[in-house]
Amino acid sequence: MRTSSGTGELLVELHRENGVPLHQQLESGIRTRIRAGLLRPDTVMPSTRALAQDLGLSRGVVVEAYQQLVAEGYLVSQAGGYTQVADVSVVEPTAAPAAASGPPRIDFRYSRPDVSQFPRVAWLRSIRRVLNETPYRSLAYIDGRGTIELRTALADYLNRVRGTAARPENMLICNGFAQGSRLLLQVLVASGYRRLAVEDPSDNDLREVAAAVGLEVVGVPVLESGVDVDALERSGADVVLVTAAHQFPTGAVASASVRAALVTWAGRADRLVIEDDYDAEYRYDREPVGAMQGLAPDRVAYAGTASKTLAPGLRLGWLILPDRLVEPMTRAKLMDDRGSPVFDQLAFADFVARGEFDRHLRRMRPRYRELRDTLVERLAVRLPELEPVGVSAGLHVMSYLPADLDESAVEAAARERGLGVYGLAPYWVSGAGPAGLVFGYGSLNRSEVVEGIDLLAAAVAELRRRRS
Amino acid sequence: MRTSSGTGELLVELHRENGVPLHQQLESGIRTRIRAGLLRPDTVMPSTRALAQDLGLSRGVVVEAYQQLVAEGYLVSQAGGYTQVADVSVVEPTAAPAAASGPPRIDFRYSRPDVSQFPRVAWLRSIRRVLNETPYRSLAYIDGRGTIELRTALADYLNRVRGTAARPENMLICNGFAQGSRLLLQVLVASGYRRLAVEDPSDNDLREVAAAVGLEVVGVPVLESGVDVDALERSGADVVLVTAAHQFPTGAVASASVRAALVTWAGRADRLVIEDDYDAEYRYDREPVGAMQGLAPDRVAYAGTASKTLAPGLRLGWLILPDRLVEPMTRAKLMDDRGSPVFDQLAFADFVARGEFDRHLRRMRPRYRELRDTLVERLAVRLPELEPVGVSAGLHVMSYLPADLDESAVEAAARERGLGVYGLAPYWVSGAGPAGLVFGYGSLNRSEVVEGIDLLAAAVAELRRRRS
Repeated sequence: MRTSSGTGELLVELHRENGVPLHQQLESGIRTRIRAGLLRPDTVMPSTRALAQDLGLSRGVVVEAYQQLVAEGYLVSQAGGYTQVADVSVVEPTAAPAAASGPPRIDFRYSRPDVSQFPRVAWLRSIRRVLNETPYRSLAYIDGRGTIELRTALADYLNRVRGTAARPENMLICNGFAQGSRLLLQVLVASGYRRLAVEDPSDNDLREVAAAVGLEVVGVPVLESGVDVDALERSGADVVLVTAAHQFPTGAVASASVRAALVTWAGRADRLVIEDDYDAEYRYDREPVGAMQGLAPDRVAYAGTASKTLAPGLRLGWLILPDRLVEPMTRAKLMDDRGSPVFDQLAFADFVARGEFDRHLRRMRPRYRELRDTLVERLAVRLPELEPVGVSAGLHVMSYLPADLDESAVEAAARERGLGVYGLAPYWVSGAGPAGLVFGYGSLNRSEVVEGIDLLAAAVAELRRRRS
Repeated sequence: MRTSSGTGELLVELHRENGVPLHQQLESGIRTRIRAGLLRPDTVMPSTRALAQDLGLSRGVVVEAYQQLVAEGYLVSQAGGYTQVADVSVVEPTAAPAAASGPPRIDFRYSRPDVSQFPRVAWLRSIRRVLNETPYRSLAYIDGRGTIELRTALADYLNRVRGTAARPENMLICNGFAQGSRLLLQVLVASGYRRLAVEDPSDNDLREVAAAVGLEVVGVPVLESGVDVDALERSGADVVLVTAAHQFPTGAVASASVRAALVTWAGRADRLVIEDDYDAEYRYDREPVGAMQGLAPDRVAYAGTASKTLAPGLRLGWLILPDRLVEPMTRAKLMDDRGSPVFDQLAFADFVARGEFDRHLRRMRPRYRELRDTLVERLAVRLPELEPVGVSAGLHVMSYLPADLDESAVEAAARERGLGVYGLAPYWVSGAGPAGLVFGYGSLNRSEVVEGIDLLAAAVAELRRRRS
């Protein structure tokens, strides 16, 4: 088929002042018309001479545009000296589906620090120093473990504050806990590990990842003193993930004997403990217990993150690895993404080394503590049956629900009032456990916490009224 | 066993002025001694009273330190009221092996831009604006596709400069090409794709990744006009990775008919073309050919990166995806690392939107062009038999070696002179192909390029002398 096209269809708007070369504007205009179906396949294009005249361009400009579009495959140059629109059967992508409905007005969703307190000024100072002082080679060379500056600063910090036994050589910087833990599980699977034990209840994110990389996942109950090591022994797992300093979500702190038993368990075969030290920075009533990693650096892989202390958007996490895992993990990280971005690493290294991180945490602790106190007090006044369990630390509090209250009914009744509360259901590994709620308060202010608990009390009262 | 410890061993150095609480200093001192084996398992610790007296501390400080170390598992509190060192069987990690020997003095390794030209001042301006103006919620909320700001800025830029058909909705920001391509291959495998065709020769990094995610990899020859589409058809592949704008390493530019044939190939079954537009920004002699993605947005997944234009250390890459891949890719990215870090994304968005990226490229093009000209001229003078093939663009030039020269012998002879040159061997997919060298010149200066070619000429002469 050979349809003819007058030059009228091709009256491309040209802006002679905007600095974009005219042939580019012409190309872009023709390209858009072909894509939009305004110039159909096999349409014969006007001659370069005619089009140049119509548009008031030199012929060379039109020739250049046609050549370019032929090279790109939009036009076809035919033997007879004319040019046709190619059969590119363009499918204009349709719009993506709209996002889900917005979040509730007051949201106790866990895992959110108060990003409004992000230390922008201090961070900018660190970034400025990095941009002024970093040797340019640091921008090109990527070490799979991360920059030596950050590994050094974090090793010093963690050894001082968390009692770890870190050296820059056995640290690896990763894009948050999510990437670090995934890579670790991948490497463990490749080394022959088969079964991962997780605390029951525990955060559910990792389970999907573990299954995806080929690990069997088993749950092990959490007691008041930490994970049940006898049950762990019986589970046949060869690797366990623990939140020893402050269990999520129960708030249990692993006792000295549980820690010792975990290390013994790991030492008996070639087993590994993964210590997710996710919120150790926020202990309010007494000093946090030091990390298990310091006790048995060869049996424990330690994972930390800036997501809870600075901002999730930084995507900065770190691992302290047993020596035997350093090399395979470095290779895995390089294969995964060639290493983490350097600017934020270098800025965070400066931030930590200059004591800004300590300063930030000192500033945030009383804020979060006040929120926790407000939450616990308000619960005691309005919903005393929901007494928090475990050690109140970090950025969340957990309560079991009284037997007459159904978890999802409470969630739904709260949601009707613009309140987000979240049950334990997703956290139970093996079937259902007792009903309860996890209150994340990190991103709220005091009056929101008070109002949130009041709304929850009203929702609970309404549920009970309806039933009776 | 119960060995007794005098307090002498425990003379921990305390610094009363340095601001670290004394009980922490004491804990740290004891912990270090236990780890170092200086306090052996079962050793009885001095009483808190005695140690307090020895160190001139209040007894409460010592009690607190002991309690902490008991909680951490370093000490055990015994029924008789005394405290013993726990059996923690600490393994002090040994030092990591030393790094390999350094790089050659002049290095033609490919894939390095001139990071000394990184636009630090403009980048700092962008970062400052981000830190001053970004709503704090952007620091918490992570969209798996990346920030809307960067997706919008890049879609505009790429549609203008590369002729793509991008919308913010079908773009995904990733940590460089490495992560983006890996995620894409993972998602394709999960969707039933089985066989990846790559250009032969081509960059070898992706092949290992493809095999790891479970794809069969086949090589398809590169002709002067781009990949051999007939061979592709025969290969039985359902996805192909092409560097259409400037083939790596041969420098071939895919012709209009190859582009059209690729789109037709992809359209005939549910196949996909991955377009790695890795160095389209550096075309010197004429405008680069527009991206294939614009021609068939439903059949082509486009991948770009800032590694070659700004710095590899940024780890910024982007994909333009066919609509059907947006949702699975977003899920894969979230599961992989919860999204890319936001500060650099927002800074890059500002940098692109304000025209700084165009400005940077305008500044860099003549520099790289001059390096390329220097390289080609010097080769013509000193080693005319190594005439470059393909289109001289991007950051590298490729030459075939004369039949009498062995690739690895040339590499080794050059290395003896402190010169890094790199053969084609790793790039051939199926067995060996002709011998050749790839010269990456992006990170060198003119005199290094000249000296490098002179050294290579000397190495070649020496090789021939030895043989005759």
